[in-house]
Amino acid sequence: MQYPKALEDLINEFMKYPGVGRKTAERYAMFSINQLNEESVRSFSESIISAKDKIKPCIVCHHLTDLETCSICSDQSRDRSKMMVLETSKDVFSIEKSQTFRGMYHVLNGSLSPLNGVGPEELNLISLWKRLEDESVKEVIIATSATQEGEATAQYIKRVLKEIDILVTRIGYGVPVGSNLEYADDQTLNKAIENRRVF
Amino acid sequence: MQYPKALEDLINEFMKYPGVGRKTAERYAMFSINQLNEESVRSFSESIISAKDKIKPCIVCHHLTDLETCSICSDQSRDRSKMMVLETSKDVFSIEKSQTFRGMYHVLNGSLSPLNGVGPEELNLISLWKRLEDESVKEVIIATSATQEGEATAQYIKRVLKEIDILVTRIGYGVPVGSNLEYADDQTLNKAIENRRVF
Repeated sequence: MQYPKALEDLINEFMKYPGVGRKTAERYAMFSINQLNEESVRSFSESIISAKDKIKPCIVCHHLTDLETCSICSDQSRDRSKMMVLETSKDVFSIEKSQTFRGMYHVLNGSLSPLNGVGPEELNLISLWKRLEDESVKEVIIATSATQEGEATAQYIKRVLKEIDILVTRIGYGVPVGSNLEYADDQTLNKAIENRRVF
Repeated sequence: MQYPKALEDLINEFMKYPGVGRKTAERYAMFSINQLNEESVRSFSESIISAKDKIKPCIVCHHLTDLETCSICSDQSRDRSKMMVLETSKDVFSIEKSQTFRGMYHVLNGSLSPLNGVGPEELNLISLWKRLEDESVKEVIIATSATQEGEATAQYIKRVLKEIDILVTRIGYGVPVGSNLEYADDQTLNKAIENRRVF
């Protein structure tokens, strides 16, 4: 016996999400039907459309924002001599939450992964080089993940920047190896930023 | 720094789901924005509305269906002398998938939990008593979960039915204690149904 089509469809939609297998998707779909009232379902449905519609990458740093230029790039009180390079917008939120950095950001939107077809062109690198030409950046802090891909990305950026007179550092102690930034707590992030080393 | 409102709203929507904490909700919300294209987001959004709209409890057994009377209740080849009583519609799908039972079902939509305000009136019990009056049911198989609430629900049904000439059994060996039916594999469910005992 199969699920009714509308239910099966919803299960398949939930299975697209990261880490969601069949059982979890079934649970979410059942919950949507059994536990949420029609108003809640409508609100959920509108919320995802609205988020997709309103939230776009900042035209300067690629951080997700509901403005054209994000509030960080617009904030004149921030230190424009330091630029932190990160893999994802989520990482920016993590660093901001830890309140340990007052410079600027640049979101690559991923890390180099040749096996998965992610080369330099797939990342926001051209806009990074442009920003480093135009702006008064003295230090680039590479805060990619401590994974193989994150490390390769860091090495790539370092290689390109070695011709230019910019200090390139890499966040170091603190972020557990093999893990993503989003799982690090504030103190770990704080230490990682404090203990950054010349790269 | 906070998330843009539309993103924060979406995170809160995901947090309503069972077992979804803040971090997971953030991950799902980010995935919705970063990884799904507009068509996928629209399809997801429509799918949840459609499922909520089309899938309703069967008017006979309360199992979720896109028909007025579900395909099991309509199936004249099934054994109407046996009725299995379960907590959720999900449990019906699990039993059906195991292909070990060809009788009828009755979905209670929960289990007795006085601390959470779930008394007999909150469950589909009146319709159960009605069905047992009208129909030619010879055996009621109570397949509530092997949890405290599931056991209390089984005891309650047994007490009510002891006046009537119906064999009341309870599925037994097989389903791990303290667990829900949905996590049991087909063989476990098979054994549990085979080894049911008079209750």
